[in-house]
Amino acid sequence: MLVFEKITDLRAQIREWRAEGQRVALVPTLGNLHGGHQSLMETARGICERVVVSIFVNPTQFGPDEDFQKYPGNSEVDVEKLLSTGVDAVFMPDADEMYPEGFSTSIDVGNIGKILCGQSRTGHFSGVATVVAKLFNIVMPDKAYFGQKDYQQSVIIRKLVRELNFDIEIISCPIIREPDGLAMSSRNAYLSEEERTAATVLSKMLKRGEELIKHHGVSDPVAVGKEMMKIIDSEPLATPDYIEIIDPDTLESVSTIESPVVLCIAARVGATRLIDNMVLGEG
Amino acid sequence: MLVFEKITDLRAQIREWRAEGQRVALVPTLGNLHGGHQSLMETARGICERVVVSIFVNPTQFGPDEDFQKYPGNSEVDVEKLLSTGVDAVFMPDADEMYPEGFSTSIDVGNIGKILCGQSRTGHFSGVATVVAKLFNIVMPDKAYFGQKDYQQSVIIRKLVRELNFDIEIISCPIIREPDGLAMSSRNAYLSEEERTAATVLSKMLKRGEELIKHHGVSDPVAVGKEMMKIIDSEPLATPDYIEIIDPDTLESVSTIESPVVLCIAARVGATRLIDNMVLGEG
Repeated sequence: MLVFEKITDLRAQIREWRAEGQRVALVPTLGNLHGGHQSLMETARGICERVVVSIFVNPTQFGPDEDFQKYPGNSEVDVEKLLSTGVDAVFMPDADEMYPEGFSTSIDVGNIGKILCGQSRTGHFSGVATVVAKLFNIVMPDKAYFGQKDYQQSVIIRKLVRELNFDIEIISCPIIREPDGLAMSSRNAYLSEEERTAATVLSKMLKRGEELIKHHGVSDPVAVGKEMMKIIDSEPLATPDYIEIIDPDTLESVSTIESPVVLCIAARVGATRLIDNMVLGEG
Repeated sequence: MLVFEKITDLRAQIREWRAEGQRVALVPTLGNLHGGHQSLMETARGICERVVVSIFVNPTQFGPDEDFQKYPGNSEVDVEKLLSTGVDAVFMPDADEMYPEGFSTSIDVGNIGKILCGQSRTGHFSGVATVVAKLFNIVMPDKAYFGQKDYQQSVIIRKLVRELNFDIEIISCPIIREPDGLAMSSRNAYLSEEERTAATVLSKMLKRGEELIKHHGVSDPVAVGKEMMKIIDSEPLATPDYIEIIDPDTLESVSTIESPVVLCIAARVGATRLIDNMVLGEG
């Protein structure tokens, strides 16, 4: 596995692969790799001849009061994991390589980045869009892989690709869960033992919503939301940020549940903000 | 010469050229082609095997009170001119092709887009950066050619390329002037006969600035500006928007003229806003 810290070095290697007609996949990550990332890499590996993983804790997607400084990461452990997964290259730039002095460009994705997680995380999706555009231009992958746990992010990336005309196929991969239902996330590392147990409340809420919609035919999103809320209300360590039932493409709240919807939750468990979601009625 | 209106068709052609190892040049224009554009195309032609010209009057770079609706253009005449220049393809999308319904992505280039022309043309450079990023992703050229008449624009495009990591070389080509010194511009078509004569005031101001700096060794930008101002003050049809002596890279006003500078002017001649500039002291 090749390790690159400099853009020009990575580019030179990718140019060689392209010249040989090999397809290149990009799996962008913030490191602290878990089973969710693993699944992205394996999916990529099955389709593209070359898989590039980026590990970059992007400062511009963290707000001033957020956890940028303490974001969990250990690049040696990550590199170990990548070695056993069999990716071709890892790109681990430092912040100066990505944001040299005087850097001032940013991409705004419009209202879709200001709702849901964007409401409490001001500027987050602009930071994501900007760094992803940079990674796309650096790697110029044929396909890029994103986890569906960050549902809003994956819709925004698709919109970014469509609207800025990147010639890249975006693949969203299903959420990978712990045996008790908790969606895998680097931020799970923040949870104390009690919080870790309490955190299962998110997936329980989604299951309850699914049950009401799929098995009981409830079509009123307010009624479903209320029932989901009851579950989190019974968990003293957890406080909801939002519970929304949204259109899968526009991310707008639906007024009635008839076509495919996504149940989306953000909640704090202790001091840790977690998100989870479930797509219903598709395929 | 191939004419494309659809992104997918243009892309398919460019992919073929790339597969054959041919280098592709992009010359982005707003149409109403003149000698300045001609010079960009000829320069591109001398270096790249394939030259693509885009003609798109980009609505997002015009302010609400600007001349988008009446921007001079005649695509048939433009296509005639391109035929005789020998470019390989022209890309003439309509607005829906570039900005489908729901489009909401925009690129902000920071303070460098808010000074000089950005001060009176709010949002202009964000519109430019966004459409240029789209064209870059559509054409994926090896090199892209811009006229130095839009000096601020060319610095901003270079910054955009650097900061978003486009793998594209930006070539700035010298200003092409009419025999009496007026910089060629599509907007010259707006000028009445009297205004056309009055418009030479811009290049006269630059020549006066050059004379003071190069031949008289004046290093005080305020003194130079005052002398330039005298010239436009003597022309009743012209009113200055700004006269600035700036650093070629940062575009910030210099406090003393010692290293290379750019003299930049924007002025109204009648109702028409014209710009001109001169780089002094470079290799």
